[in-house]
Amino acid sequence: MPDAPDRPALADDVLAGRRRAVARAITAVETAAGDGAAGDLGGADALVDALYPHTGRAWRVGVTGPPGAGKSTLVDRLVGAFRARGQTVGVVAVDPSSPFTGGALLGDRVRMDRWAEDDGVFVRSLAARGALGGLSEAAEAACDVLDAAGYDVVLVETVGVGQGEIDVAETTDTTLVVLVPESGDAVQAMKAGLMEVADVFCVNKADKPEAGRLVRALRQALHLRAAAAPPVVTASALNDEGVGGVVEALDAHRAGLDAEATREARLRRRVRRLVEAQWRRQFWAGGRGAALADAVAALDPAERAPHRLAARLLAAPPAPSVEPGRGGVEREA
Amino acid sequence: MPDAPDRPALADDVLAGRRRAVARAITAVETAAGDGAAGDLGGADALVDALYPHTGRAWRVGVTGPPGAGKSTLVDRLVGAFRARGQTVGVVAVDPSSPFTGGALLGDRVRMDRWAEDDGVFVRSLAARGALGGLSEAAEAACDVLDAAGYDVVLVETVGVGQGEIDVAETTDTTLVVLVPESGDAVQAMKAGLMEVADVFCVNKADKPEAGRLVRALRQALHLRAAAAPPVVTASALNDEGVGGVVEALDAHRAGLDAEATREARLRRRVRRLVEAQWRRQFWAGGRGAALADAVAALDPAERAPHRLAARLLAAPPAPSVEPGRGGVEREA
Repeated sequence: MPDAPDRPALADDVLAGRRRAVARAITAVETAAGDGAAGDLGGADALVDALYPHTGRAWRVGVTGPPGAGKSTLVDRLVGAFRARGQTVGVVAVDPSSPFTGGALLGDRVRMDRWAEDDGVFVRSLAARGALGGLSEAAEAACDVLDAAGYDVVLVETVGVGQGEIDVAETTDTTLVVLVPESGDAVQAMKAGLMEVADVFCVNKADKPEAGRLVRALRQALHLRAAAAPPVVTASALNDEGVGGVVEALDAHRAGLDAEATREARLRRRVRRLVEAQWRRQFWAGGRGAALADAVAALDPAERAPHRLAARLLAAPPAPSVEPGRGGVEREA
Repeated sequence: MPDAPDRPALADDVLAGRRRAVARAITAVETAAGDGAAGDLGGADALVDALYPHTGRAWRVGVTGPPGAGKSTLVDRLVGAFRARGQTVGVVAVDPSSPFTGGALLGDRVRMDRWAEDDGVFVRSLAARGALGGLSEAAEAACDVLDAAGYDVVLVETVGVGQGEIDVAETTDTTLVVLVPESGDAVQAMKAGLMEVADVFCVNKADKPEAGRLVRALRQALHLRAAAAPPVVTASALNDEGVGGVVEALDAHRAGLDAEATREARLRRRVRRLVEAQWRRQFWAGGRGAALADAVAALDPAERAPHRLAARLLAAPPAPSVEPGRGGVEREA
């Protein structure tokens, strides 16, 4: 494309694999994505665009599952397994964060500190709040940074089981869903919407008595669904048991991937999300937020009608821009 | 507003409290919201708009928490408690559904069958998929139907702990977050983003040994956050213990609500969501989905830049129509 700006200096440092640059770049993309919307916040967007052509080499592996499934411990073990065969690893831990802490929480994260002195590992927690899609954008952009910086594997750990987390899973090449016997039965897992995103299932804490039952229930449910069901493997991450089997199952999934098709599908989803975020920001910045509040307050309750209000707002000419300089839009009547 | 259409006949039947009409109306709004976007699907939108002025009387109570927390059992007990004091109750169980089952799952739902012969209770599972925001819109519209039909209390049970579920919690007046000792400690709860939406906490399965510790940890964490922390109550829903205390805490929250302010805030959020869904549907229906796919496929990988692609797509003039021809948008060079 002709209108590519000069590559930001930070991008060069990321491409050279400098750790501090990687950290700064992730902070930049995280801030931009969390700041109301994944939009054109100048610097961060240009950074992502500059790095993007250098991505696609890393294997992006999502690790997700309900709270308490032992995802962080398993991620820690997977880092060990990938390192043992000479691969470098980036870890992005996604935290639907809490104002409590202002971001990532202690606890699980502390465990990862044992990689602090290994230059082949880069661990980062994300705490993107707010805007729908902001979490996915922050996570995907952080993966881009690590991918462009040359990490062989990028592990994305998502806490929770909701739609936002499933969206994050869509940004990876391979998705590992971690379940544990005590976190509920297979029905609970299905409810959580995890079945649809899983490329590999791992029943963790497999030393617990109910583990066998969960494995069988999962396999049965999966075979009802499709002939080529994702594999179900077992592990006991805390005891470092079964991790090799998890890695094998992940490798097998990767071997079957059409890398270019995966990349294209990912870019399409990404652009779609960015278009929507950018439109959303422009639309509501145009004074329409205030117009909506006024309209709601002015209407007699007996005349409130959400769909008609929405249609009117969407059809109304743009209001004047909030910030000076972004002009070019007409004033509301 | 002047352009109100005639009230659909179905709306009259809902307002008269006819159960079959309520069921049909919820199916209509669920289908519309799940169908790619909460948009102007004619009938369903007009139905919601017609019912909306008759809403605002019901008390909308969200019940949320991690999988396995015993939410369905507690909801069942709460129905009993509200019925015992003469209130009618609607229940909306939100299921981030699974293609496995084509919708709501057996299991928890079965338990609610004991209300099947009580005309003062209406139970409904929702299985809105797909579009971001579709789940919230389906749940909120289902609440509107039950509210307009005259149910005194509408309970909304959300499975899971992700952003989509938290969005659903925003559509209620009072949000009850249910936790259990074994579903992880307070740190897990904070991670899940539940702390921010809770008006009342219930530690369920309070007969378990670690329950006291969870209660203390929660209270401590909540007091660190704000002087006026939400109350933490305990229950053992399965044994029907402590449910009165939960109801009391919910009542106390309701007593402190500014009903009109709550309604206005909810309508603002609702309209905002509808505007975005409608725009999204219009935008991508205009041939731009195909244009995006073509652009991504045609670009040399070295020239891919998500933000620039997004900006170009957003700036491009609308294509004439989806089929046939795809035309109107330039092909990427």
